[in-house]
Amino acid sequence: MTSDNFEWLYRGVTEVFPSQTDSQEESENLEQLCNRCDRPLRVKLGIDPTGTDLHLGHSIPFRKLRAFQDQGHTAVVIIGDFTAQIGDPTGKDKVRKQLSAEEVKQNAETYLQQLRPILDFDTPGRLEIRYNSEWLSKLDLAQIQELLATMTVQQMLAKEGFNNRYNQQTPIYLHEFLYPLMQGYDSVAVNADVELGGTDQKFNIAVGRDLQRHFGQKPQFGVLLPILIGTDGEQKMSKSLNNYVGLKEDALSMYSKLEKTPDALLPNYYELLTNFALTEIPENPREAQKLLAVEIISQYHGQEAALMAQKTALEIVSRQNMANAQAVPEFSLESVEFPAKLFYILNASGLVNSSGEGRRQIQGGSVRLEGDRISDVNITYDDPTQLKGKILQVGKKKFIRLV
Amino acid sequence: MTSDNFEWLYRGVTEVFPSQTDSQEESENLEQLCNRCDRPLRVKLGIDPTGTDLHLGHSIPFRKLRAFQDQGHTAVVIIGDFTAQIGDPTGKDKVRKQLSAEEVKQNAETYLQQLRPILDFDTPGRLEIRYNSEWLSKLDLAQIQELLATMTVQQMLAKEGFNNRYNQQTPIYLHEFLYPLMQGYDSVAVNADVELGGTDQKFNIAVGRDLQRHFGQKPQFGVLLPILIGTDGEQKMSKSLNNYVGLKEDALSMYSKLEKTPDALLPNYYELLTNFALTEIPENPREAQKLLAVEIISQYHGQEAALMAQKTALEIVSRQNMANAQAVPEFSLESVEFPAKLFYILNASGLVNSSGEGRRQIQGGSVRLEGDRISDVNITYDDPTQLKGKILQVGKKKFIRLV
Repeated sequence: MTSDNFEWLYRGVTEVFPSQTDSQEESENLEQLCNRCDRPLRVKLGIDPTGTDLHLGHSIPFRKLRAFQDQGHTAVVIIGDFTAQIGDPTGKDKVRKQLSAEEVKQNAETYLQQLRPILDFDTPGRLEIRYNSEWLSKLDLAQIQELLATMTVQQMLAKEGFNNRYNQQTPIYLHEFLYPLMQGYDSVAVNADVELGGTDQKFNIAVGRDLQRHFGQKPQFGVLLPILIGTDGEQKMSKSLNNYVGLKEDALSMYSKLEKTPDALLPNYYELLTNFALTEIPENPREAQKLLAVEIISQYHGQEAALMAQKTALEIVSRQNMANAQAVPEFSLESVEFPAKLFYILNASGLVNSSGEGRRQIQGGSVRLEGDRISDVNITYDDPTQLKGKILQVGKKKFIRLV
Repeated sequence: MTSDNFEWLYRGVTEVFPSQTDSQEESENLEQLCNRCDRPLRVKLGIDPTGTDLHLGHSIPFRKLRAFQDQGHTAVVIIGDFTAQIGDPTGKDKVRKQLSAEEVKQNAETYLQQLRPILDFDTPGRLEIRYNSEWLSKLDLAQIQELLATMTVQQMLAKEGFNNRYNQQTPIYLHEFLYPLMQGYDSVAVNADVELGGTDQKFNIAVGRDLQRHFGQKPQFGVLLPILIGTDGEQKMSKSLNNYVGLKEDALSMYSKLEKTPDALLPNYYELLTNFALTEIPENPREAQKLLAVEIISQYHGQEAALMAQKTALEIVSRQNMANAQAVPEFSLESVEFPAKLFYILNASGLVNSSGEGRRQIQGGSVRLEGDRISDVNITYDDPTQLKGKILQVGKKKFIRLV
């Protein structure tokens, strides 16, 4: 809890609120609270034990929670068992399906098991796991009325999700207004100083602040984290879109997905999913992909297993290439005078129609040797043994084996 | 519970719903239910024990409840002690002020005491008094969620009171949506067949129907009764407007108010506040007023006390007149030739300026003899002894004593 530049706090964060400028009633911002406070802060993060296999997208707030733990603060993980057990009475909300106490317990355990690699479960005082049925099941009608009376219909309908549905005349059932209040009351029950969540949680976290104020507590800070784009580079990571990397996947399976991380996503993935210094990301995209994969896998399976997965993946590619060898046309290097530039070999072998095209293909990132992308236009080989037996490839469909 | 023309049901009623034409799902109307049912119907009426002195306006639904009792049905009076004890958390709703358990108990007892003259408290099986804390205090969050999930925000906001406030951007607090549901759940808890209420209760009674359907009960019928106009003939009867007749007032106090019931209200008061045959209301408004007063007072204090009040009231008027006598100019009947028409005497005495004006004043209802309004233009007196000593009056300010 020493003074610092708060890189651990701000890395990858979309918003910390309130900031000191948000409101005149805030006497300090989160940095000041961190610096001033002589006790560990209570940092809340809620999960719905609805049987989800967690993926890297889910890991983001938990990684931030770990960062708080590493600063000496207490992670308070709230398991929303109460809501899961009552479900959605209308049956229309598939996320809110009703689960038995036994199912909830099993799901919660599976969930926590998946979080073991991310959170610090072992240092005393760093982790508190709470089930919200502890307090929600004890609320009576008078107390629920008190919660409801802290908010107006107009405030609820101003919330984006509700607002859209109200304007589209889609029915909004009254009990849906309870969910933000229940989540908010969790903050009261655990006396949270900070709540972490996705950017879609801002409203609910703000409701928690209102309720804490109502019950005489200092309102929590909200730390909002982005939603992760999936490995397709387009949509939110999700199991149903099959663009995900699951936390329970084995190292090799993770590697095979992560080594193909789209170039445009690399900075984002490094920032949100690793602690790697962002200034030291390899410039070569292929190298950056491989390193990213190893960095992420190391968190879940250890570095040794990560490197082993990398090696295995490479071998598999080689073996696949071997298997494909018979189908691949050969080009004899005997006709080439060494030392030889690669773009010359591309032209000589007929993969391209001119040395100029060869240069452009290298520049465009389309040329691979034994699966590794070549980006140095002037790469030169001194000796045919450097190339013999390898697959030279332009784009996805043109191959030759150098013999 | 024999077949009848249901005069006891429809007298004074604004609406019975659903009627058979309201909905195809209704297999029968209330008349058919009454005729078919081989058990007493459970007829619900709720009261808020907020310390009100009851007045004739409040008596209307209870009189209808008594009519059901007299048909053999069971009156189920719900005392809303739960809501009274939790109050309104925002403190903005003055009707919903928070009361202690002791206050609620006292108020409920006072309330019931005032209802003794109206309801049948004695016949076994005719009256059930229930406090809604019995079931509402036991609801937990899961059950409250279930209640809330039966309705949408849109349905609530379509309700007149909410709709106006929403359109005027007046804050509507979320807990306000609980009240119709609590009242509705009372119907479930007591398994009501019928609910009585003022015309402003239609929405809440309909919510009760929805909840009963949700919990697998046959939905209740609603019987809506009008809001009583006060003795000023203009505004809703209310203590604060001082246009009320309280149920706890003594007979003479009631008489002094009711004998002045505005002519236009007489049919309404007879219909809603008495069981008197409407075809037999006296045509003479003064007679109708006096009879109405006796009919109503008899319900609360017995007929003897009512007639005594009438006599006393008359004596008081006489005594007041006596007291005023010295200030009243005298007119000697010795100058009048009998038999004499009253309009002639009016002119001769100088109360009016011509016999024609005398006739017009009688027609206009401004002429009173000893306080009684004279409406017969051609009324003729045979003998001065019929008039001697009496006060003759035109309008409020012109008097003479006939001597």
